[in-house]
Amino acid sequence: MSIHDEFEFIKQITPKHQLNSDVIVGIGDDAAIIRPYTGKDVIACTDTMVEEVHFSRITMSPFHIGYKALAANISDVAAMGGTPKFYLVSLVVPTSWSEEELVEIYKGMEELAQQYQMVLIGGDTVSTSGPLVVNVMVMGSILQDKSLKRSDALPGDLVFLTGTVGDSAAGLHILLNEKDSNEYLVKRHQLPTPQGQAGILLSNLGRVALNDISDGVASEAIEIAEASQVDIELDASLIPLSAEILTFGHEQAINWALYGGEDYELIGTISSEKWSELERVFAQDDIKITKIGKVIRGSGNVSLKSGDSVKQLKKQGYNHFKHGDHNEN
Amino acid sequence: MSIHDEFEFIKQITPKHQLNSDVIVGIGDDAAIIRPYTGKDVIACTDTMVEEVHFSRITMSPFHIGYKALAANISDVAAMGGTPKFYLVSLVVPTSWSEEELVEIYKGMEELAQQYQMVLIGGDTVSTSGPLVVNVMVMGSILQDKSLKRSDALPGDLVFLTGTVGDSAAGLHILLNEKDSNEYLVKRHQLPTPQGQAGILLSNLGRVALNDISDGVASEAIEIAEASQVDIELDASLIPLSAEILTFGHEQAINWALYGGEDYELIGTISSEKWSELERVFAQDDIKITKIGKVIRGSGNVSLKSGDSVKQLKKQGYNHFKHGDHNEN
Repeated sequence: MSIHDEFEFIKQITPKHQLNSDVIVGIGDDAAIIRPYTGKDVIACTDTMVEEVHFSRITMSPFHIGYKALAANISDVAAMGGTPKFYLVSLVVPTSWSEEELVEIYKGMEELAQQYQMVLIGGDTVSTSGPLVVNVMVMGSILQDKSLKRSDALPGDLVFLTGTVGDSAAGLHILLNEKDSNEYLVKRHQLPTPQGQAGILLSNLGRVALNDISDGVASEAIEIAEASQVDIELDASLIPLSAEILTFGHEQAINWALYGGEDYELIGTISSEKWSELERVFAQDDIKITKIGKVIRGSGNVSLKSGDSVKQLKKQGYNHFKHGDHNEN
Repeated sequence: MSIHDEFEFIKQITPKHQLNSDVIVGIGDDAAIIRPYTGKDVIACTDTMVEEVHFSRITMSPFHIGYKALAANISDVAAMGGTPKFYLVSLVVPTSWSEEELVEIYKGMEELAQQYQMVLIGGDTVSTSGPLVVNVMVMGSILQDKSLKRSDALPGDLVFLTGTVGDSAAGLHILLNEKDSNEYLVKRHQLPTPQGQAGILLSNLGRVALNDISDGVASEAIEIAEASQVDIELDASLIPLSAEILTFGHEQAINWALYGGEDYELIGTISSEKWSELERVFAQDDIKITKIGKVIRGSGNVSLKSGDSVKQLKKQGYNHFKHGDHNEN
């Protein structure tokens, strides 16, 4: 990387608008200081994206890379029922990258941050001989004792999903195969919309087990089943798919939905008695929500009914680029 | 990297001792949740270390790498007067690294974390074709309106330094030049001790401008001078040096002190009226503190008096390995 003037660089990425009143010390000292709300806990998560493992410069611009890195973290906060408020960014930058490209990464983040009134409060920028690494850390607030954990599913619950799934993997497929094109699907891959508001609505509904779709429906459903020690039965015909993805056929679309990931939708379970309330609340905010299966007694297995056949799902993700593992603690 | 069983790996790095009561949700869900203290703010910082930029496998074992990465963050929290409490870790790991080596990185962090009763609450592990990247994020608590900022120096203040400086750079020199040896200096490089308690003591003394020595005395003093819009006059004969570093001669030792960095001592300024109280408080806790200069009116310059000569110091750090920038926001 080539930063000519560190002071000017930091000025460029420092938020222009006034710090909100929760930020006591923002960018520019050894650490940031924020003021928590009475009666609320602090929520924190981090997510790392590596060039050629999670993205490629062929399919993602610097702006997209920044946007998506923040989206992944907002999605994690939403999956607990929290509100994202602050973010810290660590960039590990190849020597070939220009200062303008770095600024674009921050602009991509800022675009999404503004929608959530989030403030950049710190981070660092380091050069490397290797690939670009983007690490984002998000902090936020969450009402005490209202968090939505993976381990809270119970037999008898319904399983639901927000939005549509598989679109991000379909968009990547299009970007990697020039003969196809579809603006909607490409946008779903490059500029994914996390379900921040949906997470907050769900946190007001009592017991909900919740996870976000970063690794595909199969993997995320299995995480809920394992953490809750229940089994989950999904129905392929109920999984919400966009009109755009269905142009590739139902079988391919379901495959992307199950294993593609990066849709940043929410999958969860709720007692059947609460379903109509959930539908009503989501309709008010115009957020799509679909019932896709049910929870039964068991020990961590997820099955998919497809016509007359039933198969057990396995935790597996696409490795779009080079082989890469990603384990979230 | 080769992680055989993700579940087993996370079990290995998850803290064995009970979560403390501030941790509402620890490792294992989408995000961590912590409970802040009434009357205290939340402090947060992050620091990234890249192989061959900040360390080399020749001079640092995986255990040392983990220990130092956490030490750098504890040092940042100390430099604000806060108490570190939680940490998140993002590792970007070359394919050649074994699971045992990864676990060693976490063990190095845990060794230091236990001294501060800090808890690992989240993070992720990703593979890369490039060098190892270790990103640590620390959160903690700080009394409201007691933070120690770089910008609080005033003309008339005394400038002080904890411990001794230059030792880490001397230790690295020894590691890279086999003909020399000195266990103390090598340890100061591989297992640096952040000044956590000193930061807390200083936060009880009213107005103090404070910075930690990550980039060398010159750079850190200039940051205080620039942020406070004052000038600082340092006296080379007062800079605290260990007996071990002085075996290399005073001139070389001062050079390491000014530009070596990674000592994780604290440099600060306080009004001359408070000096005797500061000395007394530090003597009670047996922490070495030395007066090294004074603050005068000015606009961000730092000079060093050395015998009869006075020279203006510049912000410059060693680049021990390949050329690498590190900008902290």
